[in-house]
Amino acid sequence: MARTLYELSGKSDRRFSPFCWRTRFALAHKNLTVDLVPVAFGEKEKIVFSGQQLVPVLVDDGATISDSWKIACYLEEKYPRAPSLFGGATGQAEALFINHWCDKSVHPPLVQAIIFDVFNNLRAEDQRYFRETREKRFGKSLEALYAERETHLANFRRTLEPARAVIGTQPFLGGAAPNYADYILAGTLQWARLASPQEALATDDTLRAWRDRVFGLFDGLANKVPAAA
Amino acid sequence: MARTLYELSGKSDRRFSPFCWRTRFALAHKNLTVDLVPVAFGEKEKIVFSGQQLVPVLVDDGATISDSWKIACYLEEKYPRAPSLFGGATGQAEALFINHWCDKSVHPPLVQAIIFDVFNNLRAEDQRYFRETREKRFGKSLEALYAERETHLANFRRTLEPARAVIGTQPFLGGAAPNYADYILAGTLQWARLASPQEALATDDTLRAWRDRVFGLFDGLANKVPAAA
Repeated sequence: MARTLYELSGKSDRRFSPFCWRTRFALAHKNLTVDLVPVAFGEKEKIVFSGQQLVPVLVDDGATISDSWKIACYLEEKYPRAPSLFGGATGQAEALFINHWCDKSVHPPLVQAIIFDVFNNLRAEDQRYFRETREKRFGKSLEALYAERETHLANFRRTLEPARAVIGTQPFLGGAAPNYADYILAGTLQWARLASPQEALATDDTLRAWRDRVFGLFDGLANKVPAAA
Repeated sequence: MARTLYELSGKSDRRFSPFCWRTRFALAHKNLTVDLVPVAFGEKEKIVFSGQQLVPVLVDDGATISDSWKIACYLEEKYPRAPSLFGGATGQAEALFINHWCDKSVHPPLVQAIIFDVFNNLRAEDQRYFRETREKRFGKSLEALYAERETHLANFRRTLEPARAVIGTQPFLGGAAPNYADYILAGTLQWARLASPQEALATDDTLRAWRDRVFGLFDGLANKVPAAA
């Protein structure tokens, strides 16, 4: 069966989107192969068929689904005999909490810490639009955000306290085995790893061992991609 | 069967501990009745048998369990035929995340917003110890924290963004029905309600409807207790 994932692509075809990585992990968890199609910021015409402008977009068995959370829910329902992404209805309900936590509490400080690095990892023709929209959003220049990066990075690391506490007593956010809850946050750390030379986690952060476990899954799916230089 | 919960008690026997409320909700969810024993800050001798100094402490069928999370896990295992608090292993693993999120991200700004009100709701003989330990912890006077309360309250409200987003698409944090994930955060809001005359949630906060739903459970268990004046 043809299955295609449209994912964000930067300079030198660098695929760093945290939301696309959530879907990459979810597909691997479900043992599903997929053709990957890169979509640069300036190539939104490639996904116009999806009726919206954001990646990831999954085309599967004639269905078109956008939004990483909706894709995960679709995969869970469509492929119930493959390993579960959520471990039941309650696990799914609470994974949505972790999804929103990551988007609303973790990403805001992280994006400010690495946004200038993200900018430098975009194709030249995409940089102007990115700079204009982001500088308007944050009310300051990308260079100003870069100058403040240590503060934003410290704020980001603080937001991870709940995950750190959980990993102190169980190997994965999903419990004894990894599930979509882990892929949500792992996608965020993969984003930082691929878009920025800054180390997202401090040297002594106990989340590093968890990250290694998740990045090593599926034959090292996440680790196979070289980190940002 | 004798079952006893030792819970924190303030001035005029006000029982506002968020951790004790988590256990109150959990017991009600499991349809378990319980004898309640008040423990003021200066009455730690009442729980010395538990081998530690914090409430809640549950004594059930000869077992002594302290720590609200451990109590919830104990109840789930001990009473498997009563309604589930977690909805399975994954739900339990992810509820632990929500538990840590509440303790580590939500409580710090809230406690600073309401700590002077908490102080005013303690017995006179407990206030000195409370003031000394808390002023040392925060490096400023309770009155200084009170003067900053609007800032701390705004910070607290911001930490609730993930819960707000979840409740935008499902009635409870636990999904279609309430479970321990809801009781964790409801305990926090009950703490604010019983210890402080400040309204924890803004007038237009969409979490108010969720709070009403949870506070109305079990014949209005939470609502029966009068709010702080």
